[in-house]
Amino acid sequence: MQPGRRTVAGTLLAGLGTVLQVPEEGLGLVVAGRTDAGVHATGQVAHVDLPPDRWAALPGRSDLAPAQALLRRLAGVLPGDVRVHRAAPAPAGFDARFSALRRRYAYRVCDDPAGVPPLRRHDVLAHRRPLDVAAMDAAAGRLVGLHDFAAFCKRRDGATTVRTLLEYGWTRDADGFAVARVVADAFCHSMVRALVGALLAVGDGRRPPAWPAEVLAGRVRDPGAAVVGPQGLTLVEVVYPDDALLAERAAQARAVRTLPAGG
Amino acid sequence: MQPGRRTVAGTLLAGLGTVLQVPEEGLGLVVAGRTDAGVHATGQVAHVDLPPDRWAALPGRSDLAPAQALLRRLAGVLPGDVRVHRAAPAPAGFDARFSALRRRYAYRVCDDPAGVPPLRRHDVLAHRRPLDVAAMDAAAGRLVGLHDFAAFCKRRDGATTVRTLLEYGWTRDADGFAVARVVADAFCHSMVRALVGALLAVGDGRRPPAWPAEVLAGRVRDPGAAVVGPQGLTLVEVVYPDDALLAERAAQARAVRTLPAGG
Repeated sequence: MQPGRRTVAGTLLAGLGTVLQVPEEGLGLVVAGRTDAGVHATGQVAHVDLPPDRWAALPGRSDLAPAQALLRRLAGVLPGDVRVHRAAPAPAGFDARFSALRRRYAYRVCDDPAGVPPLRRHDVLAHRRPLDVAAMDAAAGRLVGLHDFAAFCKRRDGATTVRTLLEYGWTRDADGFAVARVVADAFCHSMVRALVGALLAVGDGRRPPAWPAEVLAGRVRDPGAAVVGPQGLTLVEVVYPDDALLAERAAQARAVRTLPAGG
Repeated sequence: MQPGRRTVAGTLLAGLGTVLQVPEEGLGLVVAGRTDAGVHATGQVAHVDLPPDRWAALPGRSDLAPAQALLRRLAGVLPGDVRVHRAAPAPAGFDARFSALRRRYAYRVCDDPAGVPPLRRHDVLAHRRPLDVAAMDAAAGRLVGLHDFAAFCKRRDGATTVRTLLEYGWTRDADGFAVARVVADAFCHSMVRALVGALLAVGDGRRPPAWPAEVLAGRVRDPGAAVVGPQGLTLVEVVYPDDALLAERAAQARAVRTLPAGG
């Protein structure tokens, strides 16, 4: 939510308020991952708090299940750039943000000298130099693990930049785009886009393959690791533990992350 | 080209004029298939006429081939919604429009009750009722062949509506969309979109599978065969004969198509 600006959260809340006939501020919307302007999400997860009778009342006189009725009504009121693909009552202890075990992002880059195919220009970054994806993949692998990612994060007072990068790899997809797969328990602000910028410098030969790991070890931002544009980035998946572990995971994640001694 | 309106042809000509330093009106742009506003083309083909020295001069002081130099410069001057993916000197007798043997279109429809995924909303039509793609495919097959497609064409004085529909089939793609594959030697105006509209009526059960063939046989437009929106339609491929047959094919296609006696 950003006062005075159109956001996904604000648009979704307005739609939910209309369909559920509940005041928006009473819904308590919580999302798994915030997305900067221009970033996409195909696997975003959110939760809201409803009076139980609202859920049961959704089908009205139809023979649809409440979840189906909600999806159909939301499809009718939401604009074309915000869709809700699934809905369900949340299990006890579920928190869209804090119960999440990990988030997976994709970042797509087109290095065709002719430019990005027009229908993909909103979710693929154009890069003018050819990319060596195998070199990028090898260099990205060296960043995986529990580290202080200060070199790839916007500083925020009092916030830790320690994260566990679970996967970071580069491949070429069927469309010929270079695609990053980035998985972590959580990310700090602009982290994925800085991790991509650093690897583009390796891919087009401006920097050697060992350079991103050196930048990481330095723990200070390096101007060579540019934060790339938002349009290539998509939040693809949010993974949660089994229902029995949801509350425990949420309590754990709420605790401040700190770098273990010797980590 | 449409005076006072932004078109793909006008945008492309302006870019070519800039890069080639030739007056636009001297380029004689000819395209394989006109596309209505909102229709896409991933496989469009066009030709222009250049003084031979312009082609040879394209690399300037670079060591690029002329075609590569042209692609790079066009990528720099064209807006993001118009791209040129390949360029080559045309063989003798080549005419982008009249040498073409056949055109292939795709039409994509999303029948998910949640609506079209946002990143695909510009090239996929939303349909609110679930579609029986197998029934659509069977009914579409009955329209294949040499016919007078007046029932699916906008009338134009003096223009024949006789065409050979070479392929018309429906499948579901990996994204879950219903996709039409439509191939013909040539199409009359709005023909593909009317052929799609008729089959959507079969797919969602409003009409029986035999109905589109009955509409075709009637040779008059039927309000039940609505012309669907442009956004789902993409010109995917234009096929040409071997170089030796290009001029012959062009002469043949320039001749008015007429329905053979008993056809």
